[in-house]
Amino acid sequence: MCDICVMTAVKDRMLSRRDLFRGGLAVGAAGLTAGAMAKPAMADAHGSVYDLTHTYGPDFPTFFGVPGITTEQAYKFESDGFNLFNLSINEHTGTHIDAPLHFSADGKSVDEIEVGNLVVPLCVVDIRERSAFDADAQLTPDDLTAWIEANGDIPDRACVAMLSGWGDKVAEPSYRGQDDAGGLHFPGFHPEATAMLLEMTSAAAIAVDTLPLDHGASADFATHYAWLPAGRYGIENLAGLEQVPAAGATLIVGAPKHAGGSGGPARVFAMG
Amino acid sequence: MCDICVMTAVKDRMLSRRDLFRGGLAVGAAGLTAGAMAKPAMADAHGSVYDLTHTYGPDFPTFFGVPGITTEQAYKFESDGFNLFNLSINEHTGTHIDAPLHFSADGKSVDEIEVGNLVVPLCVVDIRERSAFDADAQLTPDDLTAWIEANGDIPDRACVAMLSGWGDKVAEPSYRGQDDAGGLHFPGFHPEATAMLLEMTSAAAIAVDTLPLDHGASADFATHYAWLPAGRYGIENLAGLEQVPAAGATLIVGAPKHAGGSGGPARVFAMG
Ligand SMILES: [Zn+2]
Ligand SMILES: [Zn+2]
Repeated sequence: MCDICVMTAVKDRMLSRRDLFRGGLAVGAAGLTAGAMAKPAMADAHGSVYDLTHTYGPDFPTFFGVPGITTEQAYKFESDGFNLFNLSINEHTGTHIDAPLHFSADGKSVDEIEVGNLVVPLCVVDIRERSAFDADAQLTPDDLTAWIEANGDIPDRACVAMLSGWGDKVAEPSYRGQDDAGGLHFPGFHPEATAMLLEMTSAAAIAVDTLPLDHGASADFATHYAWLPAGRYGIENLAGLEQVPAAGATLIVGAPKHAGGSGGPARVFAMG
Repeated sequence: MCDICVMTAVKDRMLSRRDLFRGGLAVGAAGLTAGAMAKPAMADAHGSVYDLTHTYGPDFPTFFGVPGITTEQAYKFESDGFNLFNLSINEHTGTHIDAPLHFSADGKSVDEIEVGNLVVPLCVVDIRERSAFDADAQLTPDDLTAWIEANGDIPDRACVAMLSGWGDKVAEPSYRGQDDAGGLHFPGFHPEATAMLLEMTSAAAIAVDTLPLDHGASADFATHYAWLPAGRYGIENLAGLEQVPAAGATLIVGAPKHAGGSGGPARVFAMG
């Protein structure tokens, strides 16, 4: 069927078949209600499912301060019989992945990250006691040591996530924390903690609930430049980390799979 | 830090710190090797993890026959110190979601699909015996009945997926199966099977390993128009379904979460 035939068929359907489907719609609605009343599907097998992904629109804060996504409606239901948008996306905006290629000449692109590194144990390191009073706070080796003392060794291929409390601030200027001189202020991984994870663990990823892996006041992106070229990956702008247990949950990273990408918006869940 | 300061800091880092990080890189590589040799992280808790997502590039076949994604390199590691691409994406290309809004005036957008409907039991209905010899084959009520007889009732909130064998054909013209008159030929859900799922189950989603939910020869998109306005969602262009057991696996749908979207490229896994 050619493009024009498709459009015509869709419009014909719109005009002529709507009434026929009233019955179908009613049945569908009933089915949906039944589904909505059911227990969460995973309640028995896997415990709770947490969505760690922010809703993503042109207003979502970005590192450079310009919209990370814009949408253009290419087809409208009212006139065309279906809705469809074209998206323009900066790979490194929204809740998203930093692939090794982001900060290296020839590291793994986002489609090349092994599936076994996208479903991994999640370690949540809570630094809110300091970050609540200091937007320049960093996750340090002491924080990692405290987590290990409380929860045991960092598991193979884990994702180590910083919980700074910034996930609640996305609608506030404090998410970027821009000062009068243009400097940014939000927490991140201290390069020494990054080095400790590289040397002592096989952690597949580090993750933050702030804009980037490095804290806002970083002058040199030391964490990005140490972590990503080592073949490991990062996750930025996580949401809702405060709901997840410090240890024992499994992170599921729905990384995009476009060929050769340096990263991109991802759907991220935790189960536990 | 202003944009120009960021760029300068990154370049400085590139020029001056590379040698310092040789050590870090070596440690990182050792860590990566250790990680790569470890068993899959989920082997004990959740069984195998299957990636049901095609790698996605401008060559990936689309319904309308034009590229679904194009990328433009905005920053290059060699000159800028990091790689970053801008992406232009048609929501309904690659392995992707059809939200209810795709075929309705005011259905749920992709960011509004409940998380509990994104982690669901997976039912794989294998029609390869027919589709191997008939590109116009459809998944029928008989196929659903046969699945139920073999595997028991379709679970609450399940995703019912058609396995036609088309997942292996994405590099071949037969994936679209365009004939001399411009008509398309590939399998899909028969409207009667769609009606049966709407009436008899609370299935959250239907999924196909072909371009759309309706088969290529459909003149009216009857399955789209029955299923999506009922508040349920679809998944198109699944990969690797033949690896997954017919029953018992859990589907994890990494749907994109852009505000108001009618769907979009998704990372889809099965565990089981
Ligand atoms: Zn990034
Ligand atoms: Zn679609």
